Amino acid sequence: MFIIGERINGMFRSVARAIRDRDAAAIADLARRQVSAGANALDLNTGPTGDDPAEVMTWLVQTVQDAVEVTLSLDSPRPAVIEAGLRACRGRAVINSTTGAAEKLDALLPLAVQFNAGLIALTIDERGIPRNAEARAEIALTIVARAMEAGLPTDRLYLDPIVLPVSAVQGQGPEALNAIPSFLALCEPMPHIVVGLSNVSQGAPNRGLINRTFLTMAMAMGLDAAILDPLDQELMDALRTASVLLNREIYCDNYLQVRTA
Amino acid sequence: MFIIGERINGMFRSVARAIRDRDAAAIADLARRQVSAGANALDLNTGPTGDDPAEVMTWLVQTVQDAVEVTLSLDSPRPAVIEAGLRACRGRAVINSTTGAAEKLDALLPLAVQFNAGLIALTIDERGIPRNAEARAEIALTIVARAMEAGLPTDRLYLDPIVLPVSAVQGQGPEALNAIPSFLALCEPMPHIVVGLSNVSQGAPNRGLINRTFLTMAMAMGLDAAILDPLDQELMDALRTASVLLNREIYCDNYLQVRTA
Repeated sequence: MFIIGERINGMFRSVARAIRDRDAAAIADLARRQVSAGANALDLNTGPTGDDPAEVMTWLVQTVQDAVEVTLSLDSPRPAVIEAGLRACRGRAVINSTTGAAEKLDALLPLAVQFNAGLIALTIDERGIPRNAEARAEIALTIVARAMEAGLPTDRLYLDPIVLPVSAVQGQGPEALNAIPSFLALCEPMPHIVVGLSNVSQGAPNRGLINRTFLTMAMAMGLDAAILDPLDQELMDALRTASVLLNREIYCDNYLQVRTA
Repeated sequence: MFIIGERINGMFRSVARAIRDRDAAAIADLARRQVSAGANALDLNTGPTGDDPAEVMTWLVQTVQDAVEVTLSLDSPRPAVIEAGLRACRGRAVINSTTGAAEKLDALLPLAVQFNAGLIALTIDERGIPRNAEARAEIALTIVARAMEAGLPTDRLYLDPIVLPVSAVQGQGPEALNAIPSFLALCEPMPHIVVGLSNVSQGAPNRGLINRTFLTMAMAMGLDAAILDPLDQELMDALRTASVLLNREIYCDNYLQVRTA
């Protein structure tokens, strides 16, 4: 599993404060803790900020890559902010995110190609959120076709089947899960499949249980990447157990004690 | 989910003692506790016994159906013991179990038809345990064809993809999971899919975590029945959460407090 740590996000109050104060030690600490808990990549999101978001993204990239050596997921609705992050990034980057909308693809596919980056692509488009698995697969096909035209290898795509809060739109859970195998059948090399996990439990009690149950079910269907909180120990234990059961990670009696660095 | 409680099994020392002493109160208590924890059916297995196993099975059936009104899963390697249970059973019964071996099918299919019972069918045969998902599907097809010939409606079949201990044969986990969708495509009406859950964690530490993770992954693939321990609260919470996420059970904020009777 490709684990993208979600915690460096200006939507969290403590992160917003660290960004405002340019508190590099606080950001570096959050980066190190997520990586030592098992994150393979870190999502960076400036959140709403009074400063120039491109400048904040640049600072976040520099601060995090001075602390840890992992892939950076540059998370912004604004292509100019993502481009600023890509320019600052010394190592691997993933763009978070495009959709199937032409305007988004026109802006972000060339950046992914130019900077040799991965690209997270939400299977929504100008018409909004698709209502079932088939509609998700249709948008995924558009994205894959546009990526191939643009010269982006399809294994640099991270297709997101759009996970919605179970407490609000319960029927969408199986639609998102069932979309996964159809995404995997779209092209060679296969795309990666990613979800923004915590969305599934928005507004619900028992958030941890809902998150880890959905994660392992999605892994059974073919999910191989997720944006999640690696500091949630029970979530990481479930993830590790699912990896072992799917024969993606070597079993040993104390596999839960073996933390990836 | 069709939950078959596994606890009334003479392999457990306390149950063996209750059987030896014909302690009806102890068996009735175990039946009631499993049903109030959510079991839709109860597995009855005499275990190794010094007495006549057909007589013991008859006593178990009478004792349990005097205490609770649920489907009884008659669990024995000996068709004569199963037949004794079927004759004693006033309500619904499931035979546990046949395999794809001709001798087993010849003995148990007529009993399932005659007594209007369900039939759990392990996808193994004379050659032993199949090595991958395709070999499991082949045996499943034999079982389905034989059931149709015998006049057993295919929705009375509970096909078991054979779950093996992850600590011993890790590669078989994904094979069992991937067999599930192919079983569901075999016939109309669709068969049920069942597993004997606790086998997956035999010999492993963290048994509860392994059991509940495998269960929810199998549910995502299409599992709709399981032989398990309904007294394992964390397992039942994971099962309930998976049912909600798969839109098979109505979501409400306190769904974990709502126990089925």
